[in-house]
Amino acid sequence: MANGVRPFFLLTNDDGIMARGLQELARHLSRFADVCVVAPEAGRSGMSQAVTSALPLRYTAYAAGTDFPQYSVNGTPADCVKLALYAILHRRPDMVIAGINHGSNASVNVLYSGTMGATLEGCIAGYTSIGFSLVNRTLDADLAPYLPWCEMIVQTTLRNGLPRGVALNVNLPRRAVQGIRVCRQTMGRWSNEFEPNQDPWGKEYFWLTGTFENLEPEAEDTDDAALRNSYIAIVPTKVDLTDEKTLQTMKNWEWK
Amino acid sequence: MANGVRPFFLLTNDDGIMARGLQELARHLSRFADVCVVAPEAGRSGMSQAVTSALPLRYTAYAAGTDFPQYSVNGTPADCVKLALYAILHRRPDMVIAGINHGSNASVNVLYSGTMGATLEGCIAGYTSIGFSLVNRTLDADLAPYLPWCEMIVQTTLRNGLPRGVALNVNLPRRAVQGIRVCRQTMGRWSNEFEPNQDPWGKEYFWLTGTFENLEPEAEDTDDAALRNSYIAIVPTKVDLTDEKTLQTMKNWEWK
Repeated sequence: MANGVRPFFLLTNDDGIMARGLQELARHLSRFADVCVVAPEAGRSGMSQAVTSALPLRYTAYAAGTDFPQYSVNGTPADCVKLALYAILHRRPDMVIAGINHGSNASVNVLYSGTMGATLEGCIAGYTSIGFSLVNRTLDADLAPYLPWCEMIVQTTLRNGLPRGVALNVNLPRRAVQGIRVCRQTMGRWSNEFEPNQDPWGKEYFWLTGTFENLEPEAEDTDDAALRNSYIAIVPTKVDLTDEKTLQTMKNWEWK
Repeated sequence: MANGVRPFFLLTNDDGIMARGLQELARHLSRFADVCVVAPEAGRSGMSQAVTSALPLRYTAYAAGTDFPQYSVNGTPADCVKLALYAILHRRPDMVIAGINHGSNASVNVLYSGTMGATLEGCIAGYTSIGFSLVNRTLDADLAPYLPWCEMIVQTTLRNGLPRGVALNVNLPRRAVQGIRVCRQTMGRWSNEFEPNQDPWGKEYFWLTGTFENLEPEAEDTDDAALRNSYIAIVPTKVDLTDEKTLQTMKNWEWK
């Protein structure tokens, strides 16, 4: 990159290839990078790192009027990254980028997020990977103020690199950005998770909904705290889930 | 439990409610515990921690001829845990148990696994949670030799407890069990991931397949190494993905 060669980015998302968060980020980054978009043909939110093995996958050229190539895939965000790296790209990307997602992926949302599923997929495959999400589900949110921040985070990460097995979970605050904070994932969960209802035949069904509950609201070093204070929250996020402390404790368990 | 009260377990899986791994484990554990099964109505392998918010969820009594209740859900493994805790169970479970899965969930498979998605969902909700998987995809594998080991691991974990945010990923070796090892997640990935083919109309499609690649084959403290040596691999697995070391490194990055 330093020698003037344009970097090459694979872009994807979980809101579907037509989503503004993806299209605007791809256009913005294409000013200094070669870009290829490979994204789900329709919304695949909440897909986590799900992969599709029971159905055949296909990709189709997506005519978006951009001067970079775009392909839609009939699968999950993680499928998109896998298929792009295996069958679509003719060049190793310098970075795998997912987003901008329309909605927060801070705290435990990282585990449910298709955006972060794609990001961790890029990471497992050995690529520097970043997921961007905006704490605003409104599909027509004004993304322009966030794009220079995303570019700066991409450039800084390209220069510094990331250790193998670590990707970035970047969440953008709802209001005017005050700056960035490198922070940790908030301990949290969702509560009151369903809205019950009845179908026309009297049978009960449930919509998944709920309220996010921060289990450590006093902590100041978390992604949730950064976002509440209008900072961009950047969490270095790893694919090795081993809890080393518990591993040591468990060596003293008496198994019987 | 110590006072003679039977513990209460929520059981689920990702192979579907009819799968032998789930049914045999539930029957075995029901000898000393109250059990309720809430599992996907059909196979939901590779679903990771995906959740369903675009479709309504329903549960249906599943007549399996067992003396404990069973319900099928038209959703993912994580949905099953959420819906069970919210709408189906009338009592807080002492443990959330997923499996026995037909196939390995060691190494990076933990990230794709619906079994482990359900397990981490139980963990996030604040319950002691264990996922069991057998390194054998054969649906008629002989599970009997593994059931006493699963019971022992459940009993030992009940006695000792787990820290909040930590669950167990237990993988059972293909051949005769030599013992247990508490170990860490192997660094690995899948390669050669797709089998291309053509449909009757000449259009190309891809089946997700691939070969698991252990990126640290010399390491002896990993789940993959334990399994190759016919030990049960138990990895304490956390829902906080923050990489603390990279977090500290990144504080010295110059952001521009």
